Amino acid sequence: MQLPTYDDVVAAAARIAGHAHHTPVLRSATADARWGAQFFFKCENFQRMGAFKFRGAFNALSRFDAAQRKAGAIAFSSGNHAQAVALSARLLGMPALIVMPQDAPAAKLAATRGYGAEVVLYDRFTEDREALTLRLAAERGMTLIPPYDHPDVIAGQGTAAKELIEETGPLDRLYVCTGGGGLTSGSALAARALAPQCKVYGVEPEAGNDAQQSLRAGRIVHIPVPQTIADGAQTQHLGEYTFGIIRRDVDDILTVSDAQLVEAMRFFAERMKMVVEPTGCLAFAGACTDAQAIRGARVGVIVSGGNVDLARYADLLAGR
Amino acid sequence: MQLPTYDDVVAAAARIAGHAHHTPVLRSATADARWGAQFFFKCENFQRMGAFKFRGAFNALSRFDAAQRKAGAIAFSSGNHAQAVALSARLLGMPALIVMPQDAPAAKLAATRGYGAEVVLYDRFTEDREALTLRLAAERGMTLIPPYDHPDVIAGQGTAAKELIEETGPLDRLYVCTGGGGLTSGSALAARALAPQCKVYGVEPEAGNDAQQSLRAGRIVHIPVPQTIADGAQTQHLGEYTFGIIRRDVDDILTVSDAQLVEAMRFFAERMKMVVEPTGCLAFAGACTDAQAIRGARVGVIVSGGNVDLARYADLLAGR
Repeated sequence: MQLPTYDDVVAAAARIAGHAHHTPVLRSATADARWGAQFFFKCENFQRMGAFKFRGAFNALSRFDAAQRKAGAIAFSSGNHAQAVALSARLLGMPALIVMPQDAPAAKLAATRGYGAEVVLYDRFTEDREALTLRLAAERGMTLIPPYDHPDVIAGQGTAAKELIEETGPLDRLYVCTGGGGLTSGSALAARALAPQCKVYGVEPEAGNDAQQSLRAGRIVHIPVPQTIADGAQTQHLGEYTFGIIRRDVDDILTVSDAQLVEAMRFFAERMKMVVEPTGCLAFAGACTDAQAIRGARVGVIVSGGNVDLARYADLLAGR
Repeated sequence: MQLPTYDDVVAAAARIAGHAHHTPVLRSATADARWGAQFFFKCENFQRMGAFKFRGAFNALSRFDAAQRKAGAIAFSSGNHAQAVALSARLLGMPALIVMPQDAPAAKLAATRGYGAEVVLYDRFTEDREALTLRLAAERGMTLIPPYDHPDVIAGQGTAAKELIEETGPLDRLYVCTGGGGLTSGSALAARALAPQCKVYGVEPEAGNDAQQSLRAGRIVHIPVPQTIADGAQTQHLGEYTFGIIRRDVDDILTVSDAQLVEAMRFFAERMKMVVEPTGCLAFAGACTDAQAIRGARVGVIVSGGNVDLARYADLLAGR
């Protein structure tokens, strides 16, 4: 297994240029004063379809050969990866099929179909999602794009940290949310190349600290589906590629509670005027728990996405 | 009375450089597809203290001479102008005194004090705010900075549209919220100079259409305090400077309902991941009511601010 490299991140950046948004890096004088640090927030909540996932999906799909393009892409996801593959396929003029649970939120089903993808529903309690997806992929000759454990996906996700560090100059510390590890490993590739002294931290929900356990154990640890509001980090294990990069290039994995995520979400809304989904709050919440270490430091924070149901968001802001 | 010119906007831009944020211009593929236009959103909700008001206040205060700096600035405001003057004074190392109503929201009092300003409270029902402010200004030798009807304030507000058009190139139409007319007149100065073909529209709440009435009547019309959720546009009349520029350089004043503001606010949250205060939704809501005219056009929208109480914001998102 050959791990992707920073050269792959550079190549991905060229492929997504003009398709993905070059998202802004925002500052907050309030955050800087409160923590005595210099924060640089890379706002992937302003990315197309509302999350960094577009970068990896578009990079992967744009590498398809003619036969693959004709048959199209298939993915299983109830979250941002589904919309990322659907939108990328539409922009590249190829079919997309997304396998989603019957009980996925109506808004997510509508958004995925809105991007022109075909949706196949399955029953989470009686059907095996991966078996179903592999069968459909074989029947239709479609190429499966996994949500994180794929070199092209990892390289695409790494373009966000590349843009961030190219804009800010070297950072002392970089915080990234960790689900399956795609964004974390891609970010680590970029940071190692562009800011070798920069420490890189993944941040997980307390309830789902499989990456932390994996780093400690030196092997990929599997856990049951964690109960957390960070639905984008309810992954049960890292992948082979992502673990390979994380164990080599990431300094540590931190964890935060759901209450800390809500606190960060309220800070983003109140002080930075941004809607950030719970998973997107992981990195900043993690940095804030590192209060001693970030003092006086230049701190990069990847705000990974903003896709949260509005009614749910209103409840979280209101403390309900 | 000499109206400020685009040269004053250029001079203001030089004064605020490095102090005000150069805010991002965001795009929305969803908005573009839905209205068949090309929208460019100038996001002043990401400005320092959360609104464009910082530009005008900082420009005005930075023109103070040594004696004025020593005595400091005074303003009456319960809104964004208070915080803009307070923050500008702190950055420029001078005292600030803000006259605010006793029943102003606690969060706004705290924010204004948080920027280091002295706050004097008055009773809205028994005291005359302007008389009190003028008396305090005379006693302390402080310079009064009005919220909109001042050449330096207008020139400062014009820097947002200047940045927008310099970034996007010529626009066909520019929509701006209209309260006392500071942002509208400053934006018109910038648009007339940088994009002479660009039509410029102010947008008011339906319930408070004094600027529209003034434009029609050819004189400044006064109205009672309007009932609207757009608290930044609850002004009762334009100023002499702002009316002078608006009647000359603005093509028309449009109005929108509170329900249309909430719809725009939900769009910003759901699709663009931005927290926008009700007043900040005026320009986009106005553009959307111009559906025929914006089709095929390059449309600039100034998103003026994001300062809304979180509990109130949650209620508006939830339709309560």
